[in-house]
Amino acid sequence: MASVLDGTAIAQELQVQLKARTAQLKESFVDLAPTLAIVQVGDREDSAVYIRNKIKTGEAVGLVVRHVHLPHSTTEEDVIDAVQTLNNDPGVHGIIVQLPLDSEQPIDEATVLNTISPSKDTDGVHSFNAGELAKKGSGNPGLVPATPLGCLHLIDRTGVQIAGKHAVVVGRSNIVGRPMAQLLLRRDATVSVAHSQTADLPALVRSADILVVAIGKANFIQGDWIKPGAIVIDCGINAVPDATKKTGRRLVGDVDFAAAKDVASFITPVPGGVGPLTVAFVVANTLKCAEAVTHSGPWTLR
Amino acid sequence: MASVLDGTAIAQELQVQLKARTAQLKESFVDLAPTLAIVQVGDREDSAVYIRNKIKTGEAVGLVVRHVHLPHSTTEEDVIDAVQTLNNDPGVHGIIVQLPLDSEQPIDEATVLNTISPSKDTDGVHSFNAGELAKKGSGNPGLVPATPLGCLHLIDRTGVQIAGKHAVVVGRSNIVGRPMAQLLLRRDATVSVAHSQTADLPALVRSADILVVAIGKANFIQGDWIKPGAIVIDCGINAVPDATKKTGRRLVGDVDFAAAKDVASFITPVPGGVGPLTVAFVVANTLKCAEAVTHSGPWTLR
Ligand SMILES: NC(=O)C1=CN([C@@H]2O[C@H](COP(=O)(O)OP(=O)(O)OC[C@H]3O[C@@H](n4cnc5c(N)ncnc54)[C@H](OP(=O)(O)O)[C@@H]3O)[C@@H](O)[C@H]2O)C=CC1
Ligand SMILES: NC(=O)C1=CN([C@@H]2O[C@H](COP(=O)(O)OP(=O)(O)OC[C@H]3O[C@@H](n4cnc5c(N)ncnc54)[C@H](OP(=O)(O)O)[C@@H]3O)[C@@H](O)[C@H]2O)C=CC1
Repeated sequence: MASVLDGTAIAQELQVQLKARTAQLKESFVDLAPTLAIVQVGDREDSAVYIRNKIKTGEAVGLVVRHVHLPHSTTEEDVIDAVQTLNNDPGVHGIIVQLPLDSEQPIDEATVLNTISPSKDTDGVHSFNAGELAKKGSGNPGLVPATPLGCLHLIDRTGVQIAGKHAVVVGRSNIVGRPMAQLLLRRDATVSVAHSQTADLPALVRSADILVVAIGKANFIQGDWIKPGAIVIDCGINAVPDATKKTGRRLVGDVDFAAAKDVASFITPVPGGVGPLTVAFVVANTLKCAEAVTHSGPWTLR
Repeated sequence: MASVLDGTAIAQELQVQLKARTAQLKESFVDLAPTLAIVQVGDREDSAVYIRNKIKTGEAVGLVVRHVHLPHSTTEEDVIDAVQTLNNDPGVHGIIVQLPLDSEQPIDEATVLNTISPSKDTDGVHSFNAGELAKKGSGNPGLVPATPLGCLHLIDRTGVQIAGKHAVVVGRSNIVGRPMAQLLLRRDATVSVAHSQTADLPALVRSADILVVAIGKANFIQGDWIKPGAIVIDCGINAVPDATKKTGRRLVGDVDFAAAKDVASFITPVPGGVGPLTVAFVVANTLKCAEAVTHSGPWTLR
């Protein structure tokens, strides 16, 4: 029977530390108001929820959070202008472009993300930061997407050594799967990346000492695919119908939690697993950007 | 019994195509002399051999190759200055900083590589280019290190479909293992990366439909580790003593070729496998940089 990793409690601990770090930064630099700007295009309901969470946690920690809300008619040029204005504003330390960009105009997402100043790139989505993470390196990488940082933190909380273990990452998005694989490789795991084209996913999952899943398919990973004693980190957030709830739905992960928890050594629940950690690391990354301004930050593009 | 992939012959074919492409570029832009600059620090024998090869092949194809040779006493500032001079020179299209930097002064390699203009980064070693490769993307990535491009070309020459196959990359350097894994992932292989901390390398290798090895250990991968029918790409270049040779040594790969060729479906020899492809793709990358100047290149940093 697995220990359930309590993401909510762990994120609260982190929040206390982040609050102290923010207070210290403000005490040392009285003119500094560490600020995160979130650019949203359109009016997606799910984006609104995520942004509200970031604002709430950011403000609780002591950050200023600016919500730059652009209409559904926004063009690529408009978003780029908005980002560049934030790049040039010394009062803004971190910038998030909330995805997906919900516009009736064609907008090339990759172009917009590469417009963010790499030193203000809270989400670690600029190619420079993705490359710093992808390259072998002693020491810490620069700015890394928050969700994989959260997953790594949860794995570390188990006390299990990562080096030498077989880590399997299912999913290969730019904000979860791919950077997760890089983080685990930097920590000396043997890393496999699976996706929708993988031939025999159950067999690969069965060989995983550490399993991180981010595919967006409710309860997809079966309990009998899990290697006994594995660490299971479930990033999935999927709404399924549930007549017993007032909203008529509830959230589940990508892993069949009930079955997997009988086999795994550690497992994250959904909700209350990876989600709260993601928000904590968004705040941590913003603080890192603000702290870097007061020294000479390592993320300045040459 | 495996088919032996003849890297020398395949590279010669590519060279004919590259020569034609170079001639066409020069015909269309009469003032353009596609130019590669190679910066070398110190006097390492092996670096001299690699640089000679690049000059020879580059010139055979019709490129101008400048060798910028700096002394063993070169400082980090000196190398950075040299690179920036080349960045600012419109007559230079591609820049290679030959590694390792052989100086008596401390030089941070990563800093030097990130000084190269991303649009002139023939070796694909700037973090921006590494990030473009590491991020999911439709279409081609920008500038990618030549050795993994050569390996991928060899795999494609087998005619075997990559998508869905299990590809195992042994080694995780910035110029071979890591970008190789990215290229295979972009082609929809399920990709595993192994290294010196991998717990059970033979077992992992046995599960590989496609095996790429780049570890620098003579004949390390045993024949009975190879899955029957696997494609085996051996990047290793290792000198071993051989009394029958005038030089007293000969070159072997990282795979026990004699044993592996009885099990694999396709295999590369050493020498004459990956090596010649690497040089061909150095030339191809330089040409890509020169061609990009004549349109608006996709690799300009914003
Ligand atoms: N907890 C948090 O804070 C966060 C949670 N999430 C959640 O994580 C999940 C994944 O999101 P995201 O990373 O953005 O993923 P994407 O939706 O961008 O990509 C999904 C990935 O899963 C792969 N995949 C889809 N179906 C299968 C399958 N049947 N077998 C194996 N792989 C499959 C896809 O493969 P292919 O590449 O071949 O298409 C793709 O790589 C979602 O539920 C999302 O809500 C995301 C971000 C933050
Ligand atoms: N054909 C060509 O044109 C080229 C050939 N090469 C050759 O390729 C080989 C590798 O070079 P390069 O990529 O620069 O590699 P590096 O020397 O930079 O790194 C070697 C890699 O191999 C891993 N490794 C070392 N020992 C073992 C082991 N026992 N089991 C598993 N993994 C191991 C290391 O792991 P860890 O990270 O844990 O230390 C490391 O990732 C060399 O022989 C080199 O000469 C290189 C470039 C071009």
